[in-house]
Amino acid sequence: MMRFTADMRSQAKSLALVPTMGALHEGHLSLIRRAKQECNVAVVSIFVNPTQFGPTEDLARYPRSPEKDLALLESLDVEAVFAPCSREIYPPDCTTFVDPGHIATVFEGALRPGHFRGVATVVLKLFNIVSPDMAFFGQKDFQQTVVIRRLVEDLNFPVRIALCPIVREADGLAKSSRNVYLNAEDRKAALVISRSLKRAEEMTQAGEGNTEKLLEEMRKTFDAEPRAQLDYAAIVNPTTLEPVAQVMPGLVALVAARLGTVRLIDNLIFGPPGSTPEQRLQLALATQPIDLEFTALSPLGERVDRNRRFLQPGRAGPTPAEGEPASRRQYRLRPAGG
Amino acid sequence: MMRFTADMRSQAKSLALVPTMGALHEGHLSLIRRAKQECNVAVVSIFVNPTQFGPTEDLARYPRSPEKDLALLESLDVEAVFAPCSREIYPPDCTTFVDPGHIATVFEGALRPGHFRGVATVVLKLFNIVSPDMAFFGQKDFQQTVVIRRLVEDLNFPVRIALCPIVREADGLAKSSRNVYLNAEDRKAALVISRSLKRAEEMTQAGEGNTEKLLEEMRKTFDAEPRAQLDYAAIVNPTTLEPVAQVMPGLVALVAARLGTVRLIDNLIFGPPGSTPEQRLQLALATQPIDLEFTALSPLGERVDRNRRFLQPGRAGPTPAEGEPASRRQYRLRPAGG
Repeated sequence: MMRFTADMRSQAKSLALVPTMGALHEGHLSLIRRAKQECNVAVVSIFVNPTQFGPTEDLARYPRSPEKDLALLESLDVEAVFAPCSREIYPPDCTTFVDPGHIATVFEGALRPGHFRGVATVVLKLFNIVSPDMAFFGQKDFQQTVVIRRLVEDLNFPVRIALCPIVREADGLAKSSRNVYLNAEDRKAALVISRSLKRAEEMTQAGEGNTEKLLEEMRKTFDAEPRAQLDYAAIVNPTTLEPVAQVMPGLVALVAARLGTVRLIDNLIFGPPGSTPEQRLQLALATQPIDLEFTALSPLGERVDRNRRFLQPGRAGPTPAEGEPASRRQYRLRPAGG
Repeated sequence: MMRFTADMRSQAKSLALVPTMGALHEGHLSLIRRAKQECNVAVVSIFVNPTQFGPTEDLARYPRSPEKDLALLESLDVEAVFAPCSREIYPPDCTTFVDPGHIATVFEGALRPGHFRGVATVVLKLFNIVSPDMAFFGQKDFQQTVVIRRLVEDLNFPVRIALCPIVREADGLAKSSRNVYLNAEDRKAALVISRSLKRAEEMTQAGEGNTEKLLEEMRKTFDAEPRAQLDYAAIVNPTTLEPVAQVMPGLVALVAARLGTVRLIDNLIFGPPGSTPEQRLQLALATQPIDLEFTALSPLGERVDRNRRFLQPGRAGPTPAEGEPASRRQYRLRPAGG
């Protein structure tokens, strides 16, 4: 894989990574189409990552459809598929993991301890193996996108993260590989999830801004569907995942629910009437200061001398511009190789 | 910094990183000289990393000598110095950290909780900012080299790690930025550290192979120097850091001791009589299966089908060689960009 990346680099091709767990559906395909649009070369990884499943979760029975996946990828003109086995990604003596901190301990992280540690670690490994210029993730797993954007920002990964809107079935159910688990009755009942989000949306369009009232309505929607157990419903800041009192464009409603043993998640980004899913996604990204272009290590407007910045810019080399991020800042003593 | 790296890449220059906390001494300079030998361009980072210091440790008073450091680096023809301030590396909202696992919890990790979490995180960040081909670390901080080699191996970093032997004062004291803390009497007493290692070495050369006997002798050496408090002495496997019963070439004796409030560490790699420090280092690296060239993700001789490797190599593209590591393994569906 690294050789492939080096080949592409030497041809000055931009490289996209679309990490998946296989069992590809229209949601994945939308990511891949976008990746093909934005980069010269698209690599799709297929890896059912064991470290993001809890001991009682559905790792063993997670849907796998390799033949169908390959055919789909071929039809999309994907340049490369990276499909390692578990022991390749996690040799027995592998001990280093990534800890995403607080945002990994709420919502999905609270209900699935260790889940985002596994997600962050495998994504970091895939980034190092594939060295993509851009990586594509679906809005559907909203908390995952937050964890990954923090990972890239906090650990200074030179990768741009792009998010794509949720793809839904005609009746509104968010596409998910796990939907195949649903029996006919639960499949019908599962519509309560998107219906609850739709209700919240309608109420905001009608002028309701109090998130507690919206959540109350969402819970009521669930009460009317006894087959579904609500794990959580929350309206949060899209970067910090902290609950907010008043709804605003760019905030996100998160829902997780169970139908029998099948757990499904969904979310909605609030936006002005008539705004497209893509516009709402941009609103959510704009709601917070994360710069996905990997430029900002710090807001250097507030440059701090108490931090013992002892090398004076310009002392021994070209002066870096004030406010230039650390990734671009350096003190060149002499022309390289000179 | 990233622009600098991109410039160097475009000139097909190999790039070396020597991460330091400044207060440069002959040990650092040996790393830098080696880096200059092995790569076209050497970048030295100077960053007193706050996250690897405990709350009661010597972060504030850690020695800093920026003018002298810069002069030294200039005299060594170093191409670039990267000296960020704390807020650039750790913006206030930074939450993602690297957890190196078990090896970070013993010896220095036990006495300095969180130390290696800080080390691993900052090294990972520096790797992502600088994108070096090789990075250079000193044998002096032996456990640190183990943590970093694991980091690179476990997280698939495309960086080669090179280690350089300990540089000592004429009387045997291992060079360390912290030596400047020692008053005259403690400076003299500190020799007990290297003396204890020398005693162990002499005993092995005389035929003693029982590590408990060697450690007993080392402790006795310390007993004779009341100014020094031994934190630990251990003889361990150089990869797992697990204590061993019988000494062998490539195993490592680790020592940590305090002189007043100054903590110093040192180590010795056992080797055949007359072997050079460099040869011993190679023996230590050879004692374990870590491949520093970043090739092996797994010993694929034992390829496992129970891991649901469902994509048959060669099905849809060129067959990867049996035993080829995951980093090189991929399934190319069609010629890239074709």
